[in-house]
Amino acid sequence: MIDLRSDTVTRPDEAMRAAMAAAPVGDDVYGEDPTVLRLEAEVAGLFGKEAALFCATGSLANLLGVWLHTKPGTEVLCDAQAHIARAEMGAHAALHGVTMRTWGSARGRLVADDALALAAVGCGPYLVETACIAVEDTHNFGGGTVQSLSEMEMLSESARGLGLRLHLDGARLANAAAATGRSFADYGALFDTVSLCLSKGLGAPVGSVLVGTAEEMARARTQRKRLGAGWRQAGVLAAAALHALEHNLDRVAEDHASARTLARAINEAAPGSLAESDVETNIVVIEAPNAPTVAARLAEQGVRVSVLGPTTLRAVTHLDVSDADCQTAGAAIGAALAN
Amino acid sequence: MIDLRSDTVTRPDEAMRAAMAAAPVGDDVYGEDPTVLRLEAEVAGLFGKEAALFCATGSLANLLGVWLHTKPGTEVLCDAQAHIARAEMGAHAALHGVTMRTWGSARGRLVADDALALAAVGCGPYLVETACIAVEDTHNFGGGTVQSLSEMEMLSESARGLGLRLHLDGARLANAAAATGRSFADYGALFDTVSLCLSKGLGAPVGSVLVGTAEEMARARTQRKRLGAGWRQAGVLAAAALHALEHNLDRVAEDHASARTLARAINEAAPGSLAESDVETNIVVIEAPNAPTVAARLAEQGVRVSVLGPTTLRAVTHLDVSDADCQTAGAAIGAALAN
Amino acid sequence: MIDLRSDTVTRPDEAMRAAMAAAPVGDDVYGEDPTVLRLEAEVAGLFGKEAALFCATGSLANLLGVWLHTKPGTEVLCDAQAHIARAEMGAHAALHGVTMRTWGSARGRLVADDALALAAVGCGPYLVETACIAVEDTHNFGGGTVQSLSEMEMLSESARGLGLRLHLDGARLANAAAATGRSFADYGALFDTVSLCLSKGLGAPVGSVLVGTAEEMARARTQRKRLGAGWRQAGVLAAAALHALEHNLDRVAEDHASARTLARAINEAAPGSLAESDVETNIVVIEAPNAPTVAARLAEQGVRVSVLGPTTLRAVTHLDVSDADCQTAGAAIGAALAN
Amino acid sequence: MIDLRSDTVTRPDEAMRAAMAAAPVGDDVYGEDPTVLRLEAEVAGLFGKEAALFCATGSLANLLGVWLHTKPGTEVLCDAQAHIARAEMGAHAALHGVTMRTWGSARGRLVADDALALAAVGCGPYLVETACIAVEDTHNFGGGTVQSLSEMEMLSESARGLGLRLHLDGARLANAAAATGRSFADYGALFDTVSLCLSKGLGAPVGSVLVGTAEEMARARTQRKRLGAGWRQAGVLAAAALHALEHNLDRVAEDHASARTLARAINEAAPGSLAESDVETNIVVIEAPNAPTVAARLAEQGVRVSVLGPTTLRAVTHLDVSDADCQTAGAAIGAALAN
Repeated sequence: MIDLRSDTVTRPDEAMRAAMAAAPVGDDVYGEDPTVLRLEAEVAGLFGKEAALFCATGSLANLLGVWLHTKPGTEVLCDAQAHIARAEMGAHAALHGVTMRTWGSARGRLVADDALALAAVGCGPYLVETACIAVEDTHNFGGGTVQSLSEMEMLSESARGLGLRLHLDGARLANAAAATGRSFADYGALFDTVSLCLSKGLGAPVGSVLVGTAEEMARARTQRKRLGAGWRQAGVLAAAALHALEHNLDRVAEDHASARTLARAINEAAPGSLAESDVETNIVVIEAPNAPTVAARLAEQGVRVSVLGPTTLRAVTHLDVSDADCQTAGAAIGAALAN
Repeated sequence: MIDLRSDTVTRPDEAMRAAMAAAPVGDDVYGEDPTVLRLEAEVAGLFGKEAALFCATGSLANLLGVWLHTKPGTEVLCDAQAHIARAEMGAHAALHGVTMRTWGSARGRLVADDALALAAVGCGPYLVETACIAVEDTHNFGGGTVQSLSEMEMLSESARGLGLRLHLDGARLANAAAATGRSFADYGALFDTVSLCLSKGLGAPVGSVLVGTAEEMARARTQRKRLGAGWRQAGVLAAAALHALEHNLDRVAEDHASARTLARAINEAAPGSLAESDVETNIVVIEAPNAPTVAARLAEQGVRVSVLGPTTLRAVTHLDVSDADCQTAGAAIGAALAN
Repeated sequence: MIDLRSDTVTRPDEAMRAAMAAAPVGDDVYGEDPTVLRLEAEVAGLFGKEAALFCATGSLANLLGVWLHTKPGTEVLCDAQAHIARAEMGAHAALHGVTMRTWGSARGRLVADDALALAAVGCGPYLVETACIAVEDTHNFGGGTVQSLSEMEMLSESARGLGLRLHLDGARLANAAAATGRSFADYGALFDTVSLCLSKGLGAPVGSVLVGTAEEMARARTQRKRLGAGWRQAGVLAAAALHALEHNLDRVAEDHASARTLARAINEAAPGSLAESDVETNIVVIEAPNAPTVAARLAEQGVRVSVLGPTTLRAVTHLDVSDADCQTAGAAIGAALAN
Repeated sequence: MIDLRSDTVTRPDEAMRAAMAAAPVGDDVYGEDPTVLRLEAEVAGLFGKEAALFCATGSLANLLGVWLHTKPGTEVLCDAQAHIARAEMGAHAALHGVTMRTWGSARGRLVADDALALAAVGCGPYLVETACIAVEDTHNFGGGTVQSLSEMEMLSESARGLGLRLHLDGARLANAAAATGRSFADYGALFDTVSLCLSKGLGAPVGSVLVGTAEEMARARTQRKRLGAGWRQAGVLAAAALHALEHNLDRVAEDHASARTLARAINEAAPGSLAESDVETNIVVIEAPNAPTVAARLAEQGVRVSVLGPTTLRAVTHLDVSDADCQTAGAAIGAALAN
């Protein structure tokens, strides 16, 4: 089975499991798990931030990040296909009372002015006040789109001038950084909070990290407890995350190469199926007349992809699939499309 | 003082007050206020709906309308400048946990395809499900824009095909109907729920009415109580609303004529200040380099307008300003702009 | 029909309607309704508070009062039969995320130590923090029970020593004050916020007033808007409320006498039906084996009472029923019980 | 260091870590982690329930359990010192809009009639409806109190007769079962949902399990995602939980013996310090004039206890402290008290 549904499906290897088995642990609710503390210090350092908070999911890290910057009845702005808008179950509104307005985009690509055009600040007590703008990099539903640093810089400068807070959904920021060659610190400088997922391309079994100021992380820790997410000896998972950062960060670029291999193989079998230049990182979006049927047929052949919509498939490369797997899978997908 | 800040500033005249003084009343929490019941039956009938609910404000009627169609964590779609998005304090999220995505528009003008492009239905348990699409007619922040019936018909047909619910924010639907010559029933046929405000151009002191099915209005009544909005002898207000419907509905077109007078007078004093064709109903939006300063200077001269943004003023005509008032005010505004 | 279901059923008389018809009004959302401003100043003055806010209902005034003192995830303490716990639809939790713990009481009678025993302050980031204690006077479901000033004084002093905020649900505080002979200012001194209902024994058609500091009322005004409760020319209702304060405050004691008449008449027809000493104000609670059946039978005879539970009826006296009415009603109720 | 602050501080031993390292895993968001599935099936079976859901914390399992049985604005009843009332940050109200009323108790001990006296069912649209009653066994803040099966049976029968739902907070149900000799299935028969914590006395690093019907668990899984708690390869933790169930369930009684040893040692050093008969399971509550000072002094001597209040300490035994440790700790605590 070549599983390209998501990079969330990766499984810890022997070395990662050994690191987990050896990790010293403590009670993280009491702030006493040494491995969690080490992970949090490590990630905060990578982003040039004061502090970090280890969370069970990227959705939780985003939920807390946006919560830090908002109050019930204020709004967060993001693009209409952002993960926080589409794939977090309305949690920002449902749990925290935060409302949202969205801008349109091409493949999720940020244009600073589109975001800023929506910003409403200092508009008095009876209009909704914008509190936060959120950006996603790479952009999942856009197809792994890498955000432009210069657009993010323009957004950051203008938004901060308006007194707005900025959150970066960095579920796949490792992919973005691999594509741009920039450091996490470059991103950290532009945003107040950043979430980084460790269980996607980096391969840890569970966990994301949120970074920000020490004061913010203390507040987020309290709200994390309210959400029923204050876990105990989480060091067993933090050990895997540390292992992932040490061993899997540099290899993310290989997934991008595999994605290009995949796209090329699809086009070889079914010419013109997709624009290979759209494959910017590890995600390949494929239009197919009857996506669910195609996905089902592929699954029978040992290739799993995910269905994003009635005519849209998504294939994601990751550390559990090789370049050869992608060649094979691409041929199968192309054949299915050509059918 | 010529008060053009909003059509909400109208005051009940002697005849309306006499109607209030004569109204039979009862306890509306028990559903026993005869004048409220008469108003609700009357408005429901106008829209061709089964039932109605008399509410203290248009914001409440919209809050309940959207609430009927959603659940915490589902979404309502609207344009990015809609009253429910901008001017209801994030209540849909803050109080009811409903999230929102928005489309861009020119002056608030509905394009059905823009709305439908955002709709997400049947997308499984882990993505946000669109529950409702909301339209505003006329569009307040768009500048009194009248929605196209054919776009609303296309939206309604497609959205219903998708199983979506539709709410019409009819704060100024009386103005829209006056402009299009259509009946309220024409609008009622296209939307599941409609709010109609009686304290704007229609001149009642307090109140809006929500219409829908009998089952929906029963549920809305319960939620209205939860919101602390289940009032007692509201018949004294319903009497004013009934009087407004009887006497002021037909004269709304006069406000549109006054608004054109106002726009023309502005352009006469300061040529090119605004596009008169943009004045579709009773709202005139005026760009001014330093809007707050201009508004303050006008107030000293006895003309009040509202400030929508750093360079945007809004003037609204209504039954307490005459065409002559608008001529006078327009001249003053134009002079201020020409300064 | 002698309607004893509640003192909310009172209807404005001619003089009150004349006051409404003559009232100058303005747009209360803009803070410009002169009659609303006069009412708010008047009631704030009565309680020795800086400011007041006119609300459509007592539930809204309570909702805003408790909201001022709490944050999502903090708690308000009250007795288990309090109106805010039982009869406000869970709004404090549902809309504002405020949790609640309750103490038991005899007929709703406050014992300061019972309230204080639940208070949790300074208990660190992971336990629920008590933010507010609420008291109801007179106590509706307790049967119009008048709270002891000395218990309220003890509660107030201790709670303030702990940094807690205090809200008084004064839906029927006019009745309490009539019974104790104390001024509203005596109550205002003990509580941070007080709600006073004007549409119960005082006879206004619609409205309650919340009092507190100017800063609190400004915040409450904003949240009132979020709740869809920022009405426009509410002066027509404020005029009725002012009239009620001027003319009906002193006559509340008559309702208490009528309630005693009612109780006595019941016992005359059905000896031992209730303890007359329990009738402290204008509420008479009557145990009946099959309450709904008894209520239905009484209604056929022109006497309406409300059903509080399977074996509990409630009769409430007010300015639309005379002492003679109560004699008649009591005889009918007693006869029904004796059956 | 003898750490008696909580049984949450336990650390996985070598065998448990080996089980984690060997566990097959998959993506639990997709329902594909075989070890998670095995754990859920195992625990569901123990309770005689159809299905289970593996959660990061007991707070989350309780949050979801109560959520299943309620709607915004309905209420859950529990005792005033229950974990869900005191130690879950008001999450039920803050996140789910559920309100609460509470009854008083002696050491958290359930008296069915006290709970039932608060239940409000069928009380019409304008009063709060009780949806759920929650019980905690053993009762944490009560001091490890074991609930009476017969009281729970009476509660269960009566509550079900009223159409109410029942949730059991079984954070320490393993301790309760060890004390009563009853099976988990006996408890499962009385409650609609039960949470069981695996990271307290059972020694797993992270995790609790919620059990109920298959339909309920499917809904809870969706809401778990909304809460940002849908983790990925959670099988590494489920493996520890399975190991805990297999190896540590039977030894819980040893912790109870150690707690008695501790209590006895305290009384030996400081006679009359506590009632040994109050030590029902693994929790020892100790009154001390200046609890924080005593705790700080003990910590310097290598004995850690938690501070529950200004004059209250709590010591909890668990699998990382031996009977001899408890003898030592008890002597130190007694000496500190005798000082």
